[in-house]
Amino acid sequence: MSLLNETLVKIKPLDKEAMDQAFKRQESLTKPAGSLGRLEDISIQLAGIQGRAIPKINKKAIITIAGDHAVASEGFHNWPQEVTIQMIMNIATGGAGVNALASHAGIQVIPVDMGVMSELPQNMGIINKKIGYGAKNIIKGPAMTREEAVAAIEAGIQLVLDEKASNGLDIVGTGEMGIGNTTPSSAICAVLTGVSVEEATGRGTGINDKQLAAKIAAIKEAIKVNNPLKEDPIDVLTKLGGYEIAGIAGLCLGAAATNTMVVVDGFISTVGALVASKICPRSKAYMLSAHKSAEKGHAAMLKYLELTPVLDLGFRLGEGTGAAIAINIVDAAIAVITNMRTFAEAGVSS
Amino acid sequence: MSLLNETLVKIKPLDKEAMDQAFKRQESLTKPAGSLGRLEDISIQLAGIQGRAIPKINKKAIITIAGDHAVASEGFHNWPQEVTIQMIMNIATGGAGVNALASHAGIQVIPVDMGVMSELPQNMGIINKKIGYGAKNIIKGPAMTREEAVAAIEAGIQLVLDEKASNGLDIVGTGEMGIGNTTPSSAICAVLTGVSVEEATGRGTGINDKQLAAKIAAIKEAIKVNNPLKEDPIDVLTKLGGYEIAGIAGLCLGAAATNTMVVVDGFISTVGALVASKICPRSKAYMLSAHKSAEKGHAAMLKYLELTPVLDLGFRLGEGTGAAIAINIVDAAIAVITNMRTFAEAGVSS
Repeated sequence: MSLLNETLVKIKPLDKEAMDQAFKRQESLTKPAGSLGRLEDISIQLAGIQGRAIPKINKKAIITIAGDHAVASEGFHNWPQEVTIQMIMNIATGGAGVNALASHAGIQVIPVDMGVMSELPQNMGIINKKIGYGAKNIIKGPAMTREEAVAAIEAGIQLVLDEKASNGLDIVGTGEMGIGNTTPSSAICAVLTGVSVEEATGRGTGINDKQLAAKIAAIKEAIKVNNPLKEDPIDVLTKLGGYEIAGIAGLCLGAAATNTMVVVDGFISTVGALVASKICPRSKAYMLSAHKSAEKGHAAMLKYLELTPVLDLGFRLGEGTGAAIAINIVDAAIAVITNMRTFAEAGVSS
Repeated sequence: MSLLNETLVKIKPLDKEAMDQAFKRQESLTKPAGSLGRLEDISIQLAGIQGRAIPKINKKAIITIAGDHAVASEGFHNWPQEVTIQMIMNIATGGAGVNALASHAGIQVIPVDMGVMSELPQNMGIINKKIGYGAKNIIKGPAMTREEAVAAIEAGIQLVLDEKASNGLDIVGTGEMGIGNTTPSSAICAVLTGVSVEEATGRGTGINDKQLAAKIAAIKEAIKVNNPLKEDPIDVLTKLGGYEIAGIAGLCLGAAATNTMVVVDGFISTVGALVASKICPRSKAYMLSAHKSAEKGHAAMLKYLELTPVLDLGFRLGEGTGAAIAINIVDAAIAVITNMRTFAEAGVSS
């Protein structure tokens, strides 16, 4: 059996008994029932994921996967393609936004090359999971082969398995770096959720009206040229995707198969989560949406996935920056269910 | 000159030059300009408050002020009045929600008695700033005397000054504990913002429809009986307020006078902030709204204050719980502006 199929059969529904126990504990703590809102929900979800009333998290990591996109050379992108490599090296050496935020929250950042356009130095701590040298231009044909799409999903799964085996991993955040990757993301969002390309397409890092019109036209062309099978998420990923998007789908599936909460960062990460949920709907229960991205199209996917983001801080950066803050809030949720006194312990009238 | 007047003359506009420098630094960091949204705004506000481009925070505290309310004995409250004292003792000994969340974020919690209905033990670390033994029943007459209202505001100012002098204080969160205090809060909210009592009044810890109708009728009666002068915020506070609400107004003014960001917790804290801003509109620039409370009436005050809450986690607990998480996010904002590399430092094309 392939790693992907092995993984899918391991994804089980959450542990309802542990969730009931967590709910009852929340009711016994010295506060009006439900008055810590989202933190209570998160603790109960995490109890169901971990199968214990009081969940614990020791090891936290954000896995930031880099991939390039030939479509970035079309004129509607603001940043040169080499920035993908420059930025994954900046992440590997600790200078990017995700590093500042992860470090503040005690989270390790694990940078991964799944498909940047050239070879990276081997001595920088960037995990080499390279499947290809950049996704091909989706306006002209498929982004990759089906074999590559499956290999990238499995590489994402393997990243979770390896990290759990070597260092332990109790919660994983998703992150990505890939100049041009809002374009394939909007294409996949439109096909898999059924919203129009206009509704699925935003300004990325800040393109102007003319560039936005060109981007929308290009995405429509890519969908027409590739004619993806809406009911086959791996076909959609193959034709419109990117290596890092496939890798994130793998992170989501690998996390769900190992009873690990996966904190889904922003727009591009949510496309990976959407692909994962189309492959295995049960995987949704292991996901936490970190934040509402400022990128158009994100809301449609969240609605489709029935996920409510924890934060709305106007982020549109990716890398796992939103996941870093959301993981910190998951830690806060655990602090509440673990450390607050019950009415009986505190001698407070209930 | 009274401490209140001394404080008001010390409240200056923010340092625009430091804010410009912080804005320029944000533009130079390795991310698209503005892509860390609210974190960038917070760092710039804090730069203006502290008068330096890269702001710093070492010592963080939440000051949680307790006070009782005779109106809590009316039938539309769910919790017995003695819970105020039980809970401030729970906070003093580390077992409440605010303790769990503050501890997670490295924040000290400072419990204060400004007006609970009886004497508290002296050996629990609860700061004694008692002005009275519970606010009087506002349905029947004023909550306190004008002298008491001013004394409670000044006690709040003094708490900030003392903490700065003895331990240092670089950011302060507001918190409160007072069974029944959504009732005076909604009354003040309606009078000072001009919204209807119905719009200003919510379900507090979870009252039913019949209780809500009784609460609205009681607040209308309290406003009618007391006839507060809308243009005199201290008169409104005197007639409809509570000692802890006055104390929070003092925290806001004391923070602003000492170039300190004040993180305003939820519904009741925002009433204190509203009173402070009516006494001194310049104090608004030093405030950060922690979170959108689930309590009705909060939105009207935020709109009036032109504050956008950092979080929306469905909290309706008070104590400073929302402030604890928001202060953690301020720390994250500082981590970004301090620790991210610039494009030049990282060798990334900009």
